Amino acid sequence: MDVRDFIRRKAELVQPVLLEYTRSENKKIETMLQHTVGAGGKRIRPVLTMLACEAVGGDVMKVLPAAASIELLHTFTLVHDDIVDRDLERRGKPTVHAKWGVDMAIIVGDTLYSKAYAALVDVRENGISDGKVLDALGVLNWANSEIHEGQILDMMFENMDRIGIDDYMEMIRKKTGVMLNASLRIGSILGGGSREEINALSSFGDSIGTAFQMHDDLLDVIADQKKLGKPIGSDIRKKKKSILVIYALNNLKAKEKKQLIGLMERSSKSEQAVREAIELITDSGAIEYAQNMVKSMTEDAKGRLKVLKDSEAKSNLLDVADYIIERNY
Amino acid sequence: MDVRDFIRRKAELVQPVLLEYTRSENKKIETMLQHTVGAGGKRIRPVLTMLACEAVGGDVMKVLPAAASIELLHTFTLVHDDIVDRDLERRGKPTVHAKWGVDMAIIVGDTLYSKAYAALVDVRENGISDGKVLDALGVLNWANSEIHEGQILDMMFENMDRIGIDDYMEMIRKKTGVMLNASLRIGSILGGGSREEINALSSFGDSIGTAFQMHDDLLDVIADQKKLGKPIGSDIRKKKKSILVIYALNNLKAKEKKQLIGLMERSSKSEQAVREAIELITDSGAIEYAQNMVKSMTEDAKGRLKVLKDSEAKSNLLDVADYIIERNY
Repeated sequence: MDVRDFIRRKAELVQPVLLEYTRSENKKIETMLQHTVGAGGKRIRPVLTMLACEAVGGDVMKVLPAAASIELLHTFTLVHDDIVDRDLERRGKPTVHAKWGVDMAIIVGDTLYSKAYAALVDVRENGISDGKVLDALGVLNWANSEIHEGQILDMMFENMDRIGIDDYMEMIRKKTGVMLNASLRIGSILGGGSREEINALSSFGDSIGTAFQMHDDLLDVIADQKKLGKPIGSDIRKKKKSILVIYALNNLKAKEKKQLIGLMERSSKSEQAVREAIELITDSGAIEYAQNMVKSMTEDAKGRLKVLKDSEAKSNLLDVADYIIERNY
Repeated sequence: MDVRDFIRRKAELVQPVLLEYTRSENKKIETMLQHTVGAGGKRIRPVLTMLACEAVGGDVMKVLPAAASIELLHTFTLVHDDIVDRDLERRGKPTVHAKWGVDMAIIVGDTLYSKAYAALVDVRENGISDGKVLDALGVLNWANSEIHEGQILDMMFENMDRIGIDDYMEMIRKKTGVMLNASLRIGSILGGGSREEINALSSFGDSIGTAFQMHDDLLDVIADQKKLGKPIGSDIRKKKKSILVIYALNNLKAKEKKQLIGLMERSSKSEQAVREAIELITDSGAIEYAQNMVKSMTEDAKGRLKVLKDSEAKSNLLDVADYIIERNY
């Protein structure tokens, strides 16, 4: 089956559970809660939870609330990140704060956050032991705390001129790797995996998550604008410290580095500045560097799964790893 | 022992645990996380958790992380509420958003939120059964979801002219009652209380929480301004629908009601309008009404504790109920 097809099929299983956890007696509140959850998206994270569960021999139907939990947590972070990033559109719809204001978006995000925990605790009703559910909650807590720390680091980076590649790697590991790690870890814990299997799936998640984020950084510059759905160079305009910008700032000669900083300052007002910044970034070798990193992290990730028995779920996971870095939108 | 003394002594037990859960390798992040937690406050909620645990014969030292969890959750709601309410000061210090901006305050709140769950899950390390810990987490989830719904209702009320007393009661039950209910419920679950004891302590919390919020509404108009630490009539200036305003709007004659609405509109610019609004509110009988409600809810709360065996903790809880409505700051 094509990777897009099985992702969509698995995602369909989790959709009714997502809607169930975003109901409210107050219809206005329900509309706001379901605004982002209902807007679609690929559901990569819950699909990973389900695949990890299956890959260790667990019953995917028992972990559906856990898969929903992961997506609810992700959705909450999107609602709050969209405020911070001043993004007015997501998946072709206005963001929550664009539609109902920042104050309401803060509280809507907080509510989705609470629903993520509610869904995970409810897994106990499906006959999974209390100990396993608490272990999974421990993972959700860890992920949660790391994600916010990653977001804070990202915000701090915006005002810093010199950031090492290591700092960047740490930040995206926290912002993206941890969440994919947690998706797989929770799925394999609840599915009854061995310690070795759980650790292998976690590392797989860490690596594909980091590759995923770097690939996103790359797409911002090299994608086909129509498929990307937003203008090329958005990160530059927002002064986001992407892997490309960081590599360029660390590797360009002093004069060109200064030039790039100047161009980024002007980029929000001048299309010409965006184009020149992209040229300088390309000249620095940043694109090849990031492409090689993405490839090697993906290969590393796939290697981790050797400890798992062969299964359809395992082969699906390997396909997802490739899919993540082949996306061109 | 005086009620203030034993509250302070119990609060001292939880303070180091609060600091432990707000540490970060990144010192800037730690400063932001500890800004509100370190600013003091009475710690009523964690003290209630500890007292409930003791009142059912549990060991208070084992539930300290749960008590910290409740305070962390409360602190997170304060950080986000201060953004929504545009409050620039709390406990004599600038609020998080006043000091580091709204974006940072959103994420700092989110991080405190995650720490609240981390602390509660960690109670399992103190030899409390997994089942009890999950039951407590279920209560935290419920409270969490209700609190945000209460906050959303409160925001919706600001733009409505006619709100019934029942709607108000529902809103403050969610905003304040639920959290005190949860503090006591979690303490008594983890302390090993019987179903009857747990339910009695929960209802006690619901009632004193609601009385607490109404008493706050009252103080905004009848307190000694110096002790209150903010100008009399703040709720009127912010067009908050307090119990006093709602009662007055529901009971004044049409002409005076229109007058009150007009005065509230102008109140943020005119001290004279604030004074006249307070006069109209007083004439409506709102103050006596609220005072009687507060008294009867407190008596009702105290009656609920009859099912508990006599103990120092029980007598402390009864003192807390009286204390909550005797505060005049």
